[in-house]
Amino acid sequence: MALGYEAWSEARRTLQTLLSASESTLRDDVSLRSRAFVHQSAAMMHLPADVGDYTDFYSSRDHATNVGIMFRGKENALMPNWLRLPVGYHGRASSLVVSGTPIRRPCGQMRPDQSNLQILGSIGVEHKTTKPGDNLTLWRLTSHIITRDIQAWEYVPLGPFLGKNFGTTISPWVVPMEALLPFAESNPIQDPEPLPYLQHQDAYTFNINLFVSLKGTLMCTGSRSGRRLGWSLRQKLGHGKSSERPWKKTSAWLRSDSGPLTNPENFGSMLELSWRGSKSIDVGGGKTRTFLKDGDEVKISAHVANSSCGFCHGQTNFINFTTHICNWAQMTSFFL
Amino acid sequence: MALGYEAWSEARRTLQTLLSASESTLRDDVSLRSRAFVHQSAAMMHLPADVGDYTDFYSSRDHATNVGIMFRGKENALMPNWLRLPVGYHGRASSLVVSGTPIRRPCGQMRPDQSNLQILGSIGVEHKTTKPGDNLTLWRLTSHIITRDIQAWEYVPLGPFLGKNFGTTISPWVVPMEALLPFAESNPIQDPEPLPYLQHQDAYTFNINLFVSLKGTLMCTGSRSGRRLGWSLRQKLGHGKSSERPWKKTSAWLRSDSGPLTNPENFGSMLELSWRGSKSIDVGGGKTRTFLKDGDEVKISAHVANSSCGFCHGQTNFINFTTHICNWAQMTSFFL
Repeated sequence: MALGYEAWSEARRTLQTLLSASESTLRDDVSLRSRAFVHQSAAMMHLPADVGDYTDFYSSRDHATNVGIMFRGKENALMPNWLRLPVGYHGRASSLVVSGTPIRRPCGQMRPDQSNLQILGSIGVEHKTTKPGDNLTLWRLTSHIITRDIQAWEYVPLGPFLGKNFGTTISPWVVPMEALLPFAESNPIQDPEPLPYLQHQDAYTFNINLFVSLKGTLMCTGSRSGRRLGWSLRQKLGHGKSSERPWKKTSAWLRSDSGPLTNPENFGSMLELSWRGSKSIDVGGGKTRTFLKDGDEVKISAHVANSSCGFCHGQTNFINFTTHICNWAQMTSFFL
Repeated sequence: MALGYEAWSEARRTLQTLLSASESTLRDDVSLRSRAFVHQSAAMMHLPADVGDYTDFYSSRDHATNVGIMFRGKENALMPNWLRLPVGYHGRASSLVVSGTPIRRPCGQMRPDQSNLQILGSIGVEHKTTKPGDNLTLWRLTSHIITRDIQAWEYVPLGPFLGKNFGTTISPWVVPMEALLPFAESNPIQDPEPLPYLQHQDAYTFNINLFVSLKGTLMCTGSRSGRRLGWSLRQKLGHGKSSERPWKKTSAWLRSDSGPLTNPENFGSMLELSWRGSKSIDVGGGKTRTFLKDGDEVKISAHVANSSCGFCHGQTNFINFTTHICNWAQMTSFFL
């Protein structure tokens, strides 16, 4: 990664050549092939890079609007700055883990006016009520904690902290931008027009087909998710870098997370699917959820494809080993 | 640092022995001494560690109260969560630089209802007004930008971003906690009592003598700054770590910044000294400031000492090479 674009491109071409049907090097050498390939089930997956900083952007206009309606009403749903700049916050880079890592519920305080008040001092062992007059709650690994309860209490006035920074999974697979760029579409027109430092003319919008399932049941898809984002990847990176001196090589890996990808047909978060916990969501097998329970497994997959692609002819194929196809946890790493 | 407490302690003892008047190894060997010592003016200073994550805490109750009065009035000055947990946000670790590094003013948007609207597209070269109807402002390296203008616009609802993350200096000198602990005082009584996970009995409050000068003129001191902080270093680290899995060795360096250290006798920020820009501050030589101007130099130094210390006998001494004495930029690195 540190070698830059030319090296990424060369590595990609080399792998594509070695894996193509017309190339004999691996195809005709059983011994070499047995040494070159490892079954994925036998491999230990790792983070693809040491991430020095990461930013979680509030990218989806539909998501920002829905959350705004819940917490501030329809009149003030979208904050005025949202249309003018990509709103985001810095996350805790050391909490990034590779996809598949079990995530522990966070420990934290919630707003003292909540009911059902208790302190759980350690992992599912201690369980005692607070003393009279002390109506704060601390949880750890209880089934009813939701991180948004932590966030609502802690985030005034400096933004999310422990409610967001206890674990974020990313895929071990890297999709280079070179593989995505053939699928770039023209950028949606932005109104109001962004300031000059946020303008770019090159097509940088990706119609990502996104699938999120909970316990095997499809929760939401995002067939037009890329086009519904308010800001492009390039704009978000450009905004994040605009204030700063040139990035240090040793800690320059900026991972940009788009946040929930909501569109008019699909909600991109449990908060919206359950409308702040007020609606039950059918997750199959006669079971329902409002928010996640202990042991729940969430799978996120995505691919990009278009009908003019000569390689996959618009077919979606999640197991074929091509660079069109990837498993993304939240949003995969990318390079400009 | 990665070797842990025992190694830090051994390194400290070894250095103290080698530098003591009673030890002949260096004292009596001119040739060895000339190789062992480098003039500080000839040395290139570096960051003492690769910092994986850093958190800026809103520690000073007086500072939080003053800022609250400015922006929300006396009635709602201190947010209710401030007394219950250490409020903080994640900063951008890659923006940390060693003390002495020139800091460039950040680029950024401000709230569109401000007057004197203009766009400065690059460093002091382009300068054009926005087109009619577009009353947003982008600055770079102008003398009137203050980062709080960026922050006020961008930080809703996810907290500070570019307004805080363009450059933070830290000292190249590390003060191990072992050197500070002899000066620890009993902790102030906290009301309301913190939740159990935020309680600790060991004395961990430091009466830091802090001096901040601007262009050589003393701006503020903080003789009781440690005691006026709402939360101890241990509480802040404990809170920050409470939500998360064990920290990864490779990126575990958590730097905790206390934020402005305001006390009843002294303001700890230009925002308070100028009371939101409404008062001029005398900086000597017939000059005044409300906020910093291009080329201004800020120096922060600090020491701890008490009258019962057998080493310095309560004397303050900024150039003597002892571990009691340090130059801190903002707040020095520390280890638990």
